[in-house]
Amino acid sequence: MTTRVTCVQLAPVLSDPDGNIERARSAIRAAVGDGARIVVLPELATSGYLFESAGEARDASITADDPRLAAWSAEAARGGAVVVAGFCERGADGLLHNSALVLDGAGVRAVYRKVHLWDREKTLFAPGRAEPPVLDTPYGRIGVLICYDLEFPEMPRALALRGADLIAVPTNWPVVPRPDGEHPPEVVAAMAAARASRVLIACCDRSGAERGERWTRGTALIDQDGWIRASTASEGGRATADLDLAAARGKRLTDLADVIADRRPELYGELVRPDRGTGRAG
Amino acid sequence: MTTRVTCVQLAPVLSDPDGNIERARSAIRAAVGDGARIVVLPELATSGYLFESAGEARDASITADDPRLAAWSAEAARGGAVVVAGFCERGADGLLHNSALVLDGAGVRAVYRKVHLWDREKTLFAPGRAEPPVLDTPYGRIGVLICYDLEFPEMPRALALRGADLIAVPTNWPVVPRPDGEHPPEVVAAMAAARASRVLIACCDRSGAERGERWTRGTALIDQDGWIRASTASEGGRATADLDLAAARGKRLTDLADVIADRRPELYGELVRPDRGTGRAG
Repeated sequence: MTTRVTCVQLAPVLSDPDGNIERARSAIRAAVGDGARIVVLPELATSGYLFESAGEARDASITADDPRLAAWSAEAARGGAVVVAGFCERGADGLLHNSALVLDGAGVRAVYRKVHLWDREKTLFAPGRAEPPVLDTPYGRIGVLICYDLEFPEMPRALALRGADLIAVPTNWPVVPRPDGEHPPEVVAAMAAARASRVLIACCDRSGAERGERWTRGTALIDQDGWIRASTASEGGRATADLDLAAARGKRLTDLADVIADRRPELYGELVRPDRGTGRAG
Repeated sequence: MTTRVTCVQLAPVLSDPDGNIERARSAIRAAVGDGARIVVLPELATSGYLFESAGEARDASITADDPRLAAWSAEAARGGAVVVAGFCERGADGLLHNSALVLDGAGVRAVYRKVHLWDREKTLFAPGRAEPPVLDTPYGRIGVLICYDLEFPEMPRALALRGADLIAVPTNWPVVPRPDGEHPPEVVAAMAAARASRVLIACCDRSGAERGERWTRGTALIDQDGWIRASTASEGGRATADLDLAAARGKRLTDLADVIADRRPELYGELVRPDRGTGRAG
């Protein structure tokens, strides 16, 4: 059985939460109308990205119980869909977070606060202090990461070990140089992570431009063999694939090779001695 | 300062250790003569791969102190080179291992026994019980993995955390299907691992054919940005690149982003609870 998964490569407008929430609602409606049962939107889809100050980010932030999100939930309800989307979160404690929410027709089911903040995000947001969610849904188990999180191989691996079938990854990937013919490096990381743990990965990048910055538009749906099943480089484009989430529960490559059971964690050294795994770089 | 690194995509002949050791010696001589200071040869370069029985593997095995290896050392000595090569090892305890040695002009400096045995190898070899070596050399710190090891993201990550600048990976990659235009999946894994930890990776595949099996011939030298600097698809071909091993000590992507210092191991869940990280698959 397959589930239609759609990523919408929206172009959020900086500091326009009302407009962004409405554009996202419209995108969810269209995707669900076309049969999507899992819809992924970009990182910071409600706010845009290139804040010049924490004050600017605060002005564009919303709380996870913002009543405007009920409109997203209503669209999800039309198809029994699950939505994963990045948003600029103002916590109950007043701190700002680069977060993602998972919602369905009943409302917000989980909020994840980005653990690995990229570059200047460190000056704007408080880092997450909790592991990402892995949620049971009617379609399978969905894990969530945000952008730079995915570039730490520990993160998708940990979610796969916790049973995620599909990892949804709202992102804002700025354009970086790459050799002709190569995928964006973040997509290479996603392909490797998918194959390493035989898990599905749905990366939803953004489009548009803000203050001179452009994004890679690297949205990609990746299967458990590590190959791209759908992508889009278009402004506002959609990538859709019908994916078999249950297939991600089979971890065997051959009768005698299994990417999870073959692990030898007792020999992973620094990875299982976390007190020694940090702080090398100055 | 750069170091010339050469991988020689040899075609070992099954069950011909004498001939394979001589062919490898000749390959080391040629590479060192052309300026290589780090030379990587394939997995099981002394024995070939497709044994039909443990007895056949035993007949093709050598010990790590086999006197014939002195000829490799003599060739390394001509250029002060370091050689990493796979071999079929008969241990002092009589067990067979899929191993790699690191040698220089002074002789064998380290032996690594493959930790993750691939498929039927489990019926032929005893798995390694020790973490891979990371050796100081005049050119930088060299870590060693063998083939399927590299597909466990924990392994290259752990070597990078232990300070490896370059990871040498003798491999025998059997051909697997892949979409047009894509790299072999094992190369994708190597590219992602290199970039994730900003470490150099030199994968040396084999060529030739044995009992109907063919190899991917995916030899690739990958830089710390995750891009392929040299490769060869030829039978017996060489891939050579002048690589800056010291560059692998810089882990920053920007002033505020560092692929090692940004880790959050306290949130890597199953990876730091090894007792829970195995045995999911049936």
